[in-house]
Amino acid sequence: MSTVDHGSRRAALRTLLTDWGVEALLVTDLLNIRYLTGFTGSNAALLVDARDEPGAESRTLICTDGRYLIQVGEQVPDLEAVIDRASAAHLIGRCADAGPVRLGFESHVVTVDELAAWQELAPSLEMTRAPRLVERLRMVKDEHEVGLLRRACAAADLALAVLVERGGLRPGRTEREVGRELEFLMLEHGADGISFETIVAAGANSAIPHHRPTDATLAAGDFVKLDFGATVEGYHSDMTRTFVLGAAADWQREVYELVATAQAAGRAALAPGVEVAAVDAAARSVIESAGYGELFLHGLGHGVGLEIHEAPGIGKLGTGTLLAGAAVTVEPGVYFSGRGGVRIEDTLVVREQEPELLTLTTKDLVIV
Amino acid sequence: MSTVDHGSRRAALRTLLTDWGVEALLVTDLLNIRYLTGFTGSNAALLVDARDEPGAESRTLICTDGRYLIQVGEQVPDLEAVIDRASAAHLIGRCADAGPVRLGFESHVVTVDELAAWQELAPSLEMTRAPRLVERLRMVKDEHEVGLLRRACAAADLALAVLVERGGLRPGRTEREVGRELEFLMLEHGADGISFETIVAAGANSAIPHHRPTDATLAAGDFVKLDFGATVEGYHSDMTRTFVLGAAADWQREVYELVATAQAAGRAALAPGVEVAAVDAAARSVIESAGYGELFLHGLGHGVGLEIHEAPGIGKLGTGTLLAGAAVTVEPGVYFSGRGGVRIEDTLVVREQEPELLTLTTKDLVIV
Repeated sequence: MSTVDHGSRRAALRTLLTDWGVEALLVTDLLNIRYLTGFTGSNAALLVDARDEPGAESRTLICTDGRYLIQVGEQVPDLEAVIDRASAAHLIGRCADAGPVRLGFESHVVTVDELAAWQELAPSLEMTRAPRLVERLRMVKDEHEVGLLRRACAAADLALAVLVERGGLRPGRTEREVGRELEFLMLEHGADGISFETIVAAGANSAIPHHRPTDATLAAGDFVKLDFGATVEGYHSDMTRTFVLGAAADWQREVYELVATAQAAGRAALAPGVEVAAVDAAARSVIESAGYGELFLHGLGHGVGLEIHEAPGIGKLGTGTLLAGAAVTVEPGVYFSGRGGVRIEDTLVVREQEPELLTLTTKDLVIV
Repeated sequence: MSTVDHGSRRAALRTLLTDWGVEALLVTDLLNIRYLTGFTGSNAALLVDARDEPGAESRTLICTDGRYLIQVGEQVPDLEAVIDRASAAHLIGRCADAGPVRLGFESHVVTVDELAAWQELAPSLEMTRAPRLVERLRMVKDEHEVGLLRRACAAADLALAVLVERGGLRPGRTEREVGRELEFLMLEHGADGISFETIVAAGANSAIPHHRPTDATLAAGDFVKLDFGATVEGYHSDMTRTFVLGAAADWQREVYELVATAQAAGRAALAPGVEVAAVDAAARSVIESAGYGELFLHGLGHGVGLEIHEAPGIGKLGTGTLLAGAAVTVEPGVYFSGRGGVRIEDTLVVREQEPELLTLTTKDLVIV
């Protein structure tokens, strides 16, 4: 696997800062800080100065509190670290002391109260809204990141394979038991953690798109929908598969086939330069043509990486185009309230040629 | 266990709104929405109108998106629900249409960009900063909440007892293995989830207050510090225990004894009306008197509930006094860089009489 290069990420950010018209960016989103430096603590602020050069980042600083004194030195050997519990305020103070600077801040995460406090602290400092600049970089994954996503997806694939193979999906078990076992198995097969609370939805519950596992038991003839993921070094996988227990009824085969066809159409539409709304439409039109458009209640997919949901959103009202290297989900669903529903979801990377599939579990209808 | 009464919580909030000088509050923090309504979905906004009466909340509305159509009806049967993906914007629009109203918003969670978008949407609407009003209510737990915290703490206690009893803490195991087993055991013993990534820190790593588990192995003579918790229905437990493997050296016994004495002093200081800074001082002064004040790198504790860290903070610079019903941690630590450290932490509820201890695992030095 290629190694991680935080310096290059900061260099790419500097170009965006110059384009945005600021001399520095105060980064306060912890995932953005992790992306730019490798630091994983729970309190930090990062000042990225656009005037620094790669390898000589004398004005670029990370600030955290005393709990992370050792950790910050280990994780961020290439930047000067300052210890102050009020990390953002400390860096604001430094900027104000250093003289006039156009300072950008992450207005999509900074709260109204935080900004008011900073302005009180440094009334003369010119602070400019600069939202989602790091997120723009994060949308395109480098090969190090794809490697981590691949490992996260593999942990989920393996866990599901073991679960099915050992008969974990059988009548009489509760949704909660199945969810717990699936999570255990991911951790046993390479996951550092769980992407989100595993969705196990049996029978009529499968018609609830984001059902939380209950003590409801699986029964013969049920749809069982599993939506779950693993994390590896902070990167999230996301996959949904829907099984049938015992024997499939005709309506179940039909809806499954329909969703699988829509999902394949969505995957086929993934390519650099394609509008995200067109990707959504590619899948949605299949379901609409079958007369079930109103039963597909959500968007087609979303970006995935350090967050389980990140840019780009892939929905009817989404704007913008896909970039090569974007990691996204494709997850259409059709839900019959009170009866059951099907969702099929993969995590993929947009490539110049066809997209790279990271979740490798079969999408054929599996009857367990 | 007493049942949950969201209507009473909203009634208590209405009193705070009137005191604050607003006629309604737009609640956008999802945990605050959960606290006030029981709704657990990932997209929602709630408008609490101070002019409503208990049992006749015709102006109080919850808004969420189509994914949660069924769920919101089940979880929030006592309020009108509106379906709109742009949930906060929808409620803002309603307020603007309904005529002049002084509308409070949660300025401690609303971002600079969100507020700007709302102001563009409804330029004539008077929006007032109203931070942390629901958090003020959440600081005092009702008996339903204490019951959930008790169950969360019991799951953690049981898991640790089983881990120790079955020899889970032994030389040669990795920190990661121990952490994973402890998490498995919590889920097996009543936890819905994990409060936060379990800290397992062996040997010199125990001197890192927030160490993440690695492949480092436990060795005879090591301190092994475990900081972990379970969630039950959204409520978090938090406990730290430090063990010694094999045989304890004199310096280990001394530092353990010191931290245990400080922790007992901190617990004894918990009472309604006491300044939080005085609680911190009660424990810190014990460590300072022994000459190790500089090695106690963090605050003494924090509130715990729907969040693992919530109000009140208990630290040197903390302000305000404790209230009866507050659930807090007491967790002093002393860390010798490169050698090892000890932290001992309980979760407790402040009561009129002595505090109620929720984490029941012994705090005697245990040598495994």
